[in-house]
Amino acid sequence: MKLTKDKKILIVGLGLIGGSYAQALTDKGYFVGAISRRDETIKYALEKGIISAGSTKVEKEFVSQFDIVIFALYPGVFIDWIDKYQSYIKDGAVLSDVTGVKGCVVYKVQSKLKDTIEFIGAHPMAGKEVYGVENADKNIFLDANYIVTPTDKNTKEAIDLCKDLGKELGFKTICTLSPEEHDEMIGFLSQLTHCIAVSLMDCKESKHLVDYTGNSFRDLTRIANINETMWTELFLLNKKELLSQMDLFISKFMELRDSLENEDIDKMKEMMRLSTERRKYFDKK
Amino acid sequence: MKLTKDKKILIVGLGLIGGSYAQALTDKGYFVGAISRRDETIKYALEKGIISAGSTKVEKEFVSQFDIVIFALYPGVFIDWIDKYQSYIKDGAVLSDVTGVKGCVVYKVQSKLKDTIEFIGAHPMAGKEVYGVENADKNIFLDANYIVTPTDKNTKEAIDLCKDLGKELGFKTICTLSPEEHDEMIGFLSQLTHCIAVSLMDCKESKHLVDYTGNSFRDLTRIANINETMWTELFLLNKKELLSQMDLFISKFMELRDSLENEDIDKMKEMMRLSTERRKYFDKK
Repeated sequence: MKLTKDKKILIVGLGLIGGSYAQALTDKGYFVGAISRRDETIKYALEKGIISAGSTKVEKEFVSQFDIVIFALYPGVFIDWIDKYQSYIKDGAVLSDVTGVKGCVVYKVQSKLKDTIEFIGAHPMAGKEVYGVENADKNIFLDANYIVTPTDKNTKEAIDLCKDLGKELGFKTICTLSPEEHDEMIGFLSQLTHCIAVSLMDCKESKHLVDYTGNSFRDLTRIANINETMWTELFLLNKKELLSQMDLFISKFMELRDSLENEDIDKMKEMMRLSTERRKYFDKK
Repeated sequence: MKLTKDKKILIVGLGLIGGSYAQALTDKGYFVGAISRRDETIKYALEKGIISAGSTKVEKEFVSQFDIVIFALYPGVFIDWIDKYQSYIKDGAVLSDVTGVKGCVVYKVQSKLKDTIEFIGAHPMAGKEVYGVENADKNIFLDANYIVTPTDKNTKEAIDLCKDLGKELGFKTICTLSPEEHDEMIGFLSQLTHCIAVSLMDCKESKHLVDYTGNSFRDLTRIANINETMWTELFLLNKKELLSQMDLFISKFMELRDSLENEDIDKMKEMMRLSTERRKYFDKK
């Protein structure tokens, strides 16, 4: 299957990311449908023209019209959905997702699927600190990365379709990683940083410090505003990898702490020179 | 002394902050002079109209013409300067600084000064990840805080002058803290955040991760691009306070780590709810 404008796309779960997918794809001219539990969500999305069809129930008649199904659900809910409703999906359809962890989701879903449909994992590395379809904004993808995580079970056709979907959504970069590589990378770059932000923000009652706060503290705690249900689930799904990244960080932080305690100036400077040098890779071009 | 436009202002040390002070005050109509070691620095600042007079040498004839002297030097160099050259400063002059730690600087300088001049500490909480007068930019003050740190030795007149200087420089907020309160606050909000950023950036060779990096990692490591000479000195000058803030952070980070290891979902969610609630104080209005 190729991604042509006549393909009908179903978004299951119409939150911030699902809603932004729907908005981007509708604006590109696709017929986009959505399933969401809350009536107001579907009503809002229809009124705003974000979707062309919607349902609060999962029914065969509705689901079976779609060629591409994208799951924007919590991982646990996603896997339950597959168990209960995959029989409604039409033969030949391609499934994808937006889940932030891959190893524990991709293989499980692929092993459960009927032979006539294919699942190809993807992770749109985009977001905002707000939730819900009311905040949907297709522009969050413009400066962001889209990672496709194929396995041995995937066909080249589905991988290409998934990449094309990332392009249609407007992502700046489309890359491919194995689920395992993805989870190590995400454990370090995303989950560890959220752990740091949460811990820093939890250190002390800090309302009285607002007036003195410069950009450093604001930047480091921006992501301490966090959806605790989603992130707890994501952390647990990537537990082993995240623990190893947290331990790596602790060991580096303790090196710096101890060099300060021992007034080991050379060591302190060496750590700062290294961080300065490495940070240059991450300057935006 | 009141801050009127006929007051001549000397900046000692013409780097990013000193240069930005000079630019802001010259643009406001003050006669601004500067002392800097490098000939090119003075030449550049004169050519660009950032200063009206400059010298690479510290000479009585030059120094004694100024009513206000602002030190934008490393703390150690600043204290040496006072020892060597304070006799050149005219009677009745008011001295201030831009040093990022206060307890170890303010009392020492005040105890060394001749009776006819007064030092009032200040900390402009502004900066950029670039250095030198070539990057001077008075706009860095517009959204920033300016903290005045008086002691028992200060007169109301000098405190008011110092606050007025902050206003003239364009700072958004002017506040007053004791040197001790300042150092605890700065240990937590600024120094600890730099320690975290440096440690995170030092965790692993990460060039291959650039393509996958979202905003979280970029935000948390922005300040890992750090002047190792200045920050090592600042850390050591605030060693006791910074160590205690680092230990506080480690204890919170370990709480989160252990709750993940033990799959203590309630505890993880509780930490995230607290961080989300507290982070709201820091949303910019």
